[in-house]
Amino acid sequence: MKNKEPLVIQDQGSFSAGGIAIHSEGQFDPNNPPDPFTPPADPFAENHNGQSLHGDNAHVFYQIPQNPRELPLVFLHGGFQTAKCWQTTVDGREGFQNIFLRRNFSVYLVDQPRRGAAGRSTVPNIVPAILEDETQFNIYRFGLWPNFYEGVQFSPDHKLWDEFLLSVTNNHGPYDAAVITDAMSAVFDKVGDGILITHSQSGGLGWLAAARNPHIKAIVSYEPGSCFLFPEGEVPETKTTCLPWNVLPASGAPMEDFLKLTKIPIIIYYGDNIASEPDKDLGRDHWRVRSEMAQLFVDKVNAYGGDATLVKLPEIGIYGNTHFIFSDLNNLEIADLLSQWLHEKGFDLTKHPISPNLSKER
Amino acid sequence: MKNKEPLVIQDQGSFSAGGIAIHSEGQFDPNNPPDPFTPPADPFAENHNGQSLHGDNAHVFYQIPQNPRELPLVFLHGGFQTAKCWQTTVDGREGFQNIFLRRNFSVYLVDQPRRGAAGRSTVPNIVPAILEDETQFNIYRFGLWPNFYEGVQFSPDHKLWDEFLLSVTNNHGPYDAAVITDAMSAVFDKVGDGILITHSQSGGLGWLAAARNPHIKAIVSYEPGSCFLFPEGEVPETKTTCLPWNVLPASGAPMEDFLKLTKIPIIIYYGDNIASEPDKDLGRDHWRVRSEMAQLFVDKVNAYGGDATLVKLPEIGIYGNTHFIFSDLNNLEIADLLSQWLHEKGFDLTKHPISPNLSKER
Repeated sequence: MKNKEPLVIQDQGSFSAGGIAIHSEGQFDPNNPPDPFTPPADPFAENHNGQSLHGDNAHVFYQIPQNPRELPLVFLHGGFQTAKCWQTTVDGREGFQNIFLRRNFSVYLVDQPRRGAAGRSTVPNIVPAILEDETQFNIYRFGLWPNFYEGVQFSPDHKLWDEFLLSVTNNHGPYDAAVITDAMSAVFDKVGDGILITHSQSGGLGWLAAARNPHIKAIVSYEPGSCFLFPEGEVPETKTTCLPWNVLPASGAPMEDFLKLTKIPIIIYYGDNIASEPDKDLGRDHWRVRSEMAQLFVDKVNAYGGDATLVKLPEIGIYGNTHFIFSDLNNLEIADLLSQWLHEKGFDLTKHPISPNLSKER
Repeated sequence: MKNKEPLVIQDQGSFSAGGIAIHSEGQFDPNNPPDPFTPPADPFAENHNGQSLHGDNAHVFYQIPQNPRELPLVFLHGGFQTAKCWQTTVDGREGFQNIFLRRNFSVYLVDQPRRGAAGRSTVPNIVPAILEDETQFNIYRFGLWPNFYEGVQFSPDHKLWDEFLLSVTNNHGPYDAAVITDAMSAVFDKVGDGILITHSQSGGLGWLAAARNPHIKAIVSYEPGSCFLFPEGEVPETKTTCLPWNVLPASGAPMEDFLKLTKIPIIIYYGDNIASEPDKDLGRDHWRVRSEMAQLFVDKVNAYGGDATLVKLPEIGIYGNTHFIFSDLNNLEIADLLSQWLHEKGFDLTKHPISPNLSKER
């Protein structure tokens, strides 16, 4: 963190958005409440104690710099992640939170419902403890366990990989795209107009949220991994990989919803070490089918008059990126790509014009 | 947030601390990994897939202002909470994070293992969805459901209470004081010397951590609620309330550990609406026995030469505080008390002397 200018923060804080309350039948007696500290014998049994439970909200931590650009960036993490993924990298570099604050963007870091600081689910859940770190190493395209890919944009140090794993987390309630979409729409009702940045699993949630809430003025999606939307009746076939359990179905949406995705600029980025044909390496093959589906999605959006772009980083000469493009060793270069795109689209305006603040200028 | 000076942040970011890895027998085949997306049929079954799982770490978000005071404040939330509790209050006022940044303290906000951004447990867990909001209303001493206490330091508005409930969360792995103490000690190994601020359930965790790690130079505990430490052989009797399920045992520690608590200043605060004798109101009675035990703890620490203080806020003319003293309507006054105490103890030194920045000066 040396040689950095201080961050001048006009305002920072947090808020909840969305969420529901459920209520049980029965009569609550405040003078004889049940024991709240001992879990129920059957955690899945219905409650009849006359009480309520609030949950399923999102949590948002925001920071607004001085002289902010007009549109904030709203970051939604992917699967197994929290807002942490946009913070300091495991080797101590600044993440997109600080990088874009320095570029005068307001940043909103979301924890989706049933994750991170938004950990209260209204539905009970079993959280398993699955030993799968080595599989994740491959799916995240750090390499083929135990070997890092050559030239990967992550210091090839197993101690740092161990550190990375400490930012991985679980769903703390059942994963429910509708619950998250509701909460993300509520986030934008509070934020107002902004640009949604998604990653991996949240790619699909971004399409769903943008079809719902017109405050989402653009979407930037890093390696979207599921729930690619197509108009009903035009949904492509499920894509298969080399492993029978790993398939990718597409999703159908009413045409009216799909068309909303043609009204906003969308850009999608994929990193390196993604196969171009079926490959026995899970990581390479997993992202092959997802990037193929993303291309079909982009083509469909554009066929209906949209403005969607898919960037495969190696095709523009940027190599070695993992699934976590925005925290990779070259994340300043990745941030520059985003700054340039936002500038081209007119999304980096300020009341008092300033430069896009590319890293090379600093 | 109007009329506030901007925050000038020299550095901010996040890191993990502590945590373990567990490993299973068997041989992992990277070319034929098991499905990581489908939960196992029996989530409590042992794994034999040759893989690993990292977890049980703490997550820390920190901010360092310009010209910081020498000792940072390290905040550990209580039960059912995350680092969120130190952020913006539900009615939009600044929490202790911002308040103490403005007073030139570095702040470190911890999510304990198996909570919030530190959500990955190495032990499987069932997360129930217990309908108990109304019981919490009482235990947190907002009032006796559905009525707010008269003069309570929380806007008596049920919509704000609903909002408050969205910051409540669950344990995402089994609650384990030893796991959390390990992680908190690891936090201080990374932070270095600092002052630990605890709340409620984490009060006990603070005593355990301070007995372990000499970097903890003082403890400020808001309404500690469990795990009061006494020397083995001098442990007082379990305290009982008006409800049979609500009892408070004390904990024994080796004398060597207990004596470490006599080497650092400790201050404990309790709010208002706490009974002085057995009371049928759960909230009033719950905190009666905890504050009684806290007095025994303070007396014992001081009997062995320590410097512990218990402040019952109504006894110094501050009324209406709930269990969440630090986010109550009068939290600037509460912050002033802390600033004054830190000043008296010489814990607010800077390289370039500045005032304690009490709220009245602003």
